[in-house]
Amino acid sequence: MRSIKLTLAYDGTDFRGWQAQPGLPTVQGALAEVLARITQESVAVHGAGRTDAGVHALGQVAHFHTESKLAPEEFQRALNALLPVAIRVNAAEEVAPDFHARHSALGKTYSYRIYRGNVLPPFAARYMLHYPGPLDEDAMRQAAALFIGEHDFTTFSSNPEAGESPEGVTSAPPPIRAIWESRILRTGDDLIYRVRGRSFLRYMVRKITGTLLEVGRGRLQPADIPELFAARDRSMSGPTLAPHGLFMEAVEYPPPAL
Amino acid sequence: MRSIKLTLAYDGTDFRGWQAQPGLPTVQGALAEVLARITQESVAVHGAGRTDAGVHALGQVAHFHTESKLAPEEFQRALNALLPVAIRVNAAEEVAPDFHARHSALGKTYSYRIYRGNVLPPFAARYMLHYPGPLDEDAMRQAAALFIGEHDFTTFSSNPEAGESPEGVTSAPPPIRAIWESRILRTGDDLIYRVRGRSFLRYMVRKITGTLLEVGRGRLQPADIPELFAARDRSMSGPTLAPHGLFMEAVEYPPPAL
Repeated sequence: MRSIKLTLAYDGTDFRGWQAQPGLPTVQGALAEVLARITQESVAVHGAGRTDAGVHALGQVAHFHTESKLAPEEFQRALNALLPVAIRVNAAEEVAPDFHARHSALGKTYSYRIYRGNVLPPFAARYMLHYPGPLDEDAMRQAAALFIGEHDFTTFSSNPEAGESPEGVTSAPPPIRAIWESRILRTGDDLIYRVRGRSFLRYMVRKITGTLLEVGRGRLQPADIPELFAARDRSMSGPTLAPHGLFMEAVEYPPPAL
Repeated sequence: MRSIKLTLAYDGTDFRGWQAQPGLPTVQGALAEVLARITQESVAVHGAGRTDAGVHALGQVAHFHTESKLAPEEFQRALNALLPVAIRVNAAEEVAPDFHARHSALGKTYSYRIYRGNVLPPFAARYMLHYPGPLDEDAMRQAAALFIGEHDFTTFSSNPEAGESPEGVTSAPPPIRAIWESRILRTGDDLIYRVRGRSFLRYMVRKITGTLLEVGRGRLQPADIPELFAARDRSMSGPTLAPHGLFMEAVEYPPPAL
């Protein structure tokens, strides 16, 4: 049996997220269906992270096991020939049998894109949140830096009572997460929040970015961020921003053993 | 009565082209409907050119007459608030009563975008043709230059017998068109054909680009282009490329009178 690792980009607009759901268009479902056609096997596809409906990926990673003799490049070509154009396989490689897209991951990078110009270009409408109003971007930069480190992210998590279980967390332990990089970047009219860390709770990046927007609008101060962490209260974070501005940028793994 | 000029960008993917058609989503139809809501008048919207289904615009121009007292910036804001996000008004200005988006135009620029990398990014799939195979781009450059000047573009026109009437031409006169600029540009994996001229026949840019692709593939030589013009035979041009790679870039007008 062989293990194949895929690096994927997708436009999440027309998918109900990563995770397969019967009768709904999902990225995992599309991959499993096409892999079954290619291999004539029932293939389980494991992703590094479950992106929500409407969220995009530049570098999602997935793996699957197969008895097929196809070379990784042949898998890449066959998948790209049969998948919808909104999902592309940018790389395919054979990996050690114990590789697991989620369990082996050392870290992930996400970005959230906000368009600051007055008129949102129609070609950006699927990929950016439009926020043309005034923002104190220096305050946002200061606040962004305060997310770096190990914190209890309860305030920036989803509501388990509403049936949303934080990614990778099934029950009691406090949602401590390590963030290594958290910054605001500006390129022309594009304001991008970029965050890199070990792992993330569901909605965490969209809630952090929503909180940074509140800081930009003057409704919160950078000095409030430590208090938000301490409160461990979901109702105190900024809003969960719309999914279409969020991109899963990359997943990091240890270098392969020699 | 006032005349208002609009400069528009749109993602043509979900529209059946510019021209209003009963019961179908069109750019002109969407504009007329929203302008009627804003002004409470029945508004006729005239475009500089009728883009076909699936064709995009970065700088389409349109005008309309109105009794409304709204300032141009108010029209812009109201239109952008009510139009689908796939259509944006980038500028609105009051113009002289004799301004006509099509008749006053001095020239237009179109571009056709081709992605040359192996894997088409999902975010480019709506806006570029994917052609990863080998192409002799130098030959394409040479051939592109041969379209500059005044030519009879019958070979690069649509078929009137099939019910397609070339833009601006209703009957007999030979379809002579003046092209001022015709070139191949390369930025990373993006190959862009850019053409600027007085006016264009229907499908003309897509047929010229299809012909340039045939030159790139070695099926035609640059030296064949003068013969194609001379033949005045539609069956001799390259194929009409898919609409989604085509952008109406800009429309030129004389400077306003002082």
